[in-house]
Amino acid sequence: MLTLRSSPASPFGRKVKISASLLGLTDRIQVTDADTLNPEDSLRQQNPLGKIPALVLENGETLYDSRVIVEYLDHLAGGGRIFPAGWERFAALRQQALADGIMDAALLQVYEGRFRPTEKHEPKWIDHQADKVRRGLDHAEAYLATPATELHIGHIAQACALGYLDLRFGGRWRENAPKLVAWLADFEARVPAFAKTRVSA
Amino acid sequence: MLTLRSSPASPFGRKVKISASLLGLTDRIQVTDADTLNPEDSLRQQNPLGKIPALVLENGETLYDSRVIVEYLDHLAGGGRIFPAGWERFAALRQQALADGIMDAALLQVYEGRFRPTEKHEPKWIDHQADKVRRGLDHAEAYLATPATELHIGHIAQACALGYLDLRFGGRWRENAPKLVAWLADFEARVPAFAKTRVSA
Repeated sequence: MLTLRSSPASPFGRKVKISASLLGLTDRIQVTDADTLNPEDSLRQQNPLGKIPALVLENGETLYDSRVIVEYLDHLAGGGRIFPAGWERFAALRQQALADGIMDAALLQVYEGRFRPTEKHEPKWIDHQADKVRRGLDHAEAYLATPATELHIGHIAQACALGYLDLRFGGRWRENAPKLVAWLADFEARVPAFAKTRVSA
Repeated sequence: MLTLRSSPASPFGRKVKISASLLGLTDRIQVTDADTLNPEDSLRQQNPLGKIPALVLENGETLYDSRVIVEYLDHLAGGGRIFPAGWERFAALRQQALADGIMDAALLQVYEGRFRPTEKHEPKWIDHQADKVRRGLDHAEAYLATPATELHIGHIAQACALGYLDLRFGGRWRENAPKLVAWLADFEARVPAFAKTRVSA
């Protein structure tokens, strides 16, 4: 049995859970919630960075971060299942990188509220991160909103990024991204794990 | 000709430059500095996240982030050159993830000074990031400080993380990490590109 250390709201953890589901590996993975702020949580022994997700293997080794885990799961499932070959691999990895970047920039805005009193919030920093999200969404709306023929890691990551914006920013991205709204509805209709891993605010 | 958008001090850009050198691709890549804070810089058209490094290909496509670029360069050089096969691939990717995480946590401390006036600095946040760096270094000192037989992306990333701590934090990591100090000296002796890409504070 593999053990996934994550938390219900983590968008990077959700990427791993949905990947595992598409790869038919859900039954081989138990999910154990981790508290990234608790020094006593075994997470910091498993991943020195103290970040989720981390995947504990049967031999005691741990893999991180989410990109490494999803590639390992694909390998366990035979390889080439959610990672295309040739140039398409790099296009998929780039789409994942864009989605991961959107999630990182969204998380940094959330952390601003979690780690600082209001008087220490810095609009310049928050705007800098919000601009990354906005530009990333504009790009995805223009170039990455065609319903996929074969689902790959880029699509999974993009769905998780949009889901995280729904969770933490009230879905305001939907106002200016009609193609992505349709794209996400198509993804959700095809991937039951997306709804199963949704949490409410 | 490929064009790498980066900046001299970027540890992630350095990872790409050293990888290119080890792969014999330096002559095929021109480096053009990018200003991540300037909205007029073409970087934001090349990478919507506005982050460096980004690699502009001959057909006008751009790849990002650094992990995607180094894998693409390895592919251009024939494949499997700085990415081992089998389990060792995942161990190398995990080492890269650890080093990238150290660089991210170090950068967030630097950005604290760059984006905020002193009165808005938050010790709780800075400590949270500094603890990630400290734990990452302790782990590397204990488990990842044996001079490599064959250099791979994990080693390159680790060298860039240590180099960035030298640049921005006065090399204080050296006091508690004698094995890593020796490891980095060995890396530098074997990889001329490491010294060539060093910048001074």
